[in-house]
Amino acid sequence: MANIWARILVAAVTILVAVGYKNYRDLSAPGKRPDLDNQEYWGPTLKEPYRENKAILPFDISVKPEVIEDLVSQLRRPLKAQAPLEGVGFKYGFNANELAKVVKYWRDTYLAKWSEREQYLKKLDHYQTEIQGLKIHFIHAKPKQVKGQKTKKVLPLLLMHGWPGTVREFYDFIPLLTTPSDKSDYVFEVIAPSLPGYGWSQGSSKTGFGVAQVAVVMRNLMLRVGFDKFLVQGGDWGSLIGSNVASLFPENVLGYHSNMCGNNSPMGQLRLLLASFFPSWYVDSQYADFYKGLGHFFGTIMEEMGYAHIQASKPDTIGNALIDNPTGLASYILEKFSTWTNTEFRLLPDGGLTKKFTYDQLLDNVMIYYVTNSITTSMRLYSESMVASQFALAVDSVPIQAKAGCARFAHEITHVPDSVLANKFPNLVHSSHHKDGGHFPAFELPQQLYDDFVSFVQKANF
Amino acid sequence: MANIWARILVAAVTILVAVGYKNYRDLSAPGKRPDLDNQEYWGPTLKEPYRENKAILPFDISVKPEVIEDLVSQLRRPLKAQAPLEGVGFKYGFNANELAKVVKYWRDTYLAKWSEREQYLKKLDHYQTEIQGLKIHFIHAKPKQVKGQKTKKVLPLLLMHGWPGTVREFYDFIPLLTTPSDKSDYVFEVIAPSLPGYGWSQGSSKTGFGVAQVAVVMRNLMLRVGFDKFLVQGGDWGSLIGSNVASLFPENVLGYHSNMCGNNSPMGQLRLLLASFFPSWYVDSQYADFYKGLGHFFGTIMEEMGYAHIQASKPDTIGNALIDNPTGLASYILEKFSTWTNTEFRLLPDGGLTKKFTYDQLLDNVMIYYVTNSITTSMRLYSESMVASQFALAVDSVPIQAKAGCARFAHEITHVPDSVLANKFPNLVHSSHHKDGGHFPAFELPQQLYDDFVSFVQKANF
Repeated sequence: MANIWARILVAAVTILVAVGYKNYRDLSAPGKRPDLDNQEYWGPTLKEPYRENKAILPFDISVKPEVIEDLVSQLRRPLKAQAPLEGVGFKYGFNANELAKVVKYWRDTYLAKWSEREQYLKKLDHYQTEIQGLKIHFIHAKPKQVKGQKTKKVLPLLLMHGWPGTVREFYDFIPLLTTPSDKSDYVFEVIAPSLPGYGWSQGSSKTGFGVAQVAVVMRNLMLRVGFDKFLVQGGDWGSLIGSNVASLFPENVLGYHSNMCGNNSPMGQLRLLLASFFPSWYVDSQYADFYKGLGHFFGTIMEEMGYAHIQASKPDTIGNALIDNPTGLASYILEKFSTWTNTEFRLLPDGGLTKKFTYDQLLDNVMIYYVTNSITTSMRLYSESMVASQFALAVDSVPIQAKAGCARFAHEITHVPDSVLANKFPNLVHSSHHKDGGHFPAFELPQQLYDDFVSFVQKANF
Repeated sequence: MANIWARILVAAVTILVAVGYKNYRDLSAPGKRPDLDNQEYWGPTLKEPYRENKAILPFDISVKPEVIEDLVSQLRRPLKAQAPLEGVGFKYGFNANELAKVVKYWRDTYLAKWSEREQYLKKLDHYQTEIQGLKIHFIHAKPKQVKGQKTKKVLPLLLMHGWPGTVREFYDFIPLLTTPSDKSDYVFEVIAPSLPGYGWSQGSSKTGFGVAQVAVVMRNLMLRVGFDKFLVQGGDWGSLIGSNVASLFPENVLGYHSNMCGNNSPMGQLRLLLASFFPSWYVDSQYADFYKGLGHFFGTIMEEMGYAHIQASKPDTIGNALIDNPTGLASYILEKFSTWTNTEFRLLPDGGLTKKFTYDQLLDNVMIYYVTNSITTSMRLYSESMVASQFALAVDSVPIQAKAGCARFAHEITHVPDSVLANKFPNLVHSSHHKDGGHFPAFELPQQLYDDFVSFVQKANF
């Protein structure tokens, strides 16, 4: 009798080990690049065959005065936002008392000096070109060489923002990149697009335009501008799109640097799970503070991912609620610049908004969403990327062959340790942990992000 | 050697069975009623001790003409809602083309006859009284006895709506309840409150006002009106609050009828999980269509629960976006009257809104949120109920001793079979499955809901 049990047990263990090994091998196997149509058309349905206009034209971001006047009049409406519950700070979202302050500043101070803000936004060079049926806006910042100094080698860089960001995040970061410094043997020629559907870049008219398809457009943009070898940097969606560009186009991507490296391959997810249970196996003890385990992860999903849930499922409903609604839009966007900069800021009555940013900086970013009417199209990136047809492409399982660098800023919502990144980034040459900073380091700590980025580039030795 | 394995296996199985049995017993054990303060104060912090004004006063729901004029002018703004992706119907949320139609009708037709709509809303008798620091609005509809017919026995009924509903859902249902019919030996005296924070009822100023605390207020309202024995009926939050009233106050609740019966006790959740894997053990085969298993359940959570996720975590942010924003509010609220009436309506360009309702009906409901500025306070019910401190009360584990009736309408988002309801409803005397209807049966199929309700009351034989 006992013998039978033993045989059953041995058989069961054998099967488990075999299945586990088989699955582990399957999980470990690098994925193949999916076959995407690199010229797929995303504009409105046409009666005629589509002919791409390949011209690159300077783009005027000026806002019509009547738009500003109308905005002022909208902001003059008495604010009816519900008073917050007593003592909640930002824990229930954007505090209505702080919203009243933001709206007052926006109307009475910021918009009163709008022409100055507009000039500021124009200080970088804006262009537009048409890719796959979409008008794509981008900033093109050329490197400055200093007379009398040895000319630095120029590396092209595709620099991408995320949601609810814009190119405005990069206004202090870009000049660092284009100016020679002692810290770097290189200087960078920066292409910073508005993501399709964000800011001045047109959104798709068709379904299925997820992160991989956006990556195709972004790579085509770089080819259009004349770069077939380039670096990629980004956070948030910029990180994910960049990861897709690097996975899909190893022939074009020299190096990938991100302040939000992730590994969504099945092996990555499995390791992340294991790392949550057995952190000491996966995480260098000196950085243990960065990796907070499964409880924190699920708590974060419950408390902080509602926006992603609704944007992935009903982007048009929430878009209808925010479009042409300046106070609602500011509240929705700026909540993220509070909580994602530091989740502790949820405890503060003013959300700590001005601890790291000025109202001017923040409102510049909100203005870009407002004047371009782009909040709905921006949120559709969630619905088009967090969907079975996108997961089926399995770009996440395609390793990035380019040299990679991962910077971690302390207050980012969640961090992924090197050991978990390994199968996605076989050439991870740079990995860092910063004691401060949050989700928007280019905006919050541009010098620190620059130092990290050039440290990566030096190590990579392109 | 083999013997050792066998012993380990036997020991492991024994432990598993013991742990399983222990947990099953723990799960099965009926919970105890938590000790709630039945007079807890929820109004704004006062300098003086609170003195409740116990008067019940007629309440005038008239809307100031300037509010209507301002609304018309807001609806005259050119609608900037983003055009939907090609061919998506309501799958991405409220379709902007349909929104344009709703806004046009609202502005040009509905508001042009607002005084008629207002008279319609006034046809039932409105009252207000103060409970625990909150001004609570309710409709009080007294039964009509028909001269010359035998007088029917009167049963008081607490009738509660949910989110994003209002008392407007009950305008065709209430007259059925108060009018004697051949189908019933009873006639009903209906108290239909606006939930606290909804419509004309004041919301809490303090945190911690979740479903159990709302139940206390609702029971106090019934006592205030003079009923210490009453029936409860509701769907959505009305069902959950009603379930809390019945669990907490068995001495007051004669019977509980719901069109969205649920069992959120641990045992209920375990059985629901098992029922998903082994439906034939749990579900009568003739109703198999109603119970769609775990895949459907998780699919529904992903596709349809984004609103609950954001409302539970950031109610003030989404509230700031919807308050004083009529087009956004209509889009956000009416999406639910499309999808929750029938998820198939997501495929239709107009969301099937007028298949079951008229624009007038739907806009009456939206108007109540708009004119009372109550969307934020209404959504806080999610944050205050879906939180650890509320779960810790474990009201879900307290069985409802009153006789209970559960009506299931075919297109409700999710259904719970009798076998899963068993430990929560030991006296389930009525259970039904309707071939049509959705989440709002009082609004959509008032006669059918009435028939179901009186069928329950007849069986219960109060």
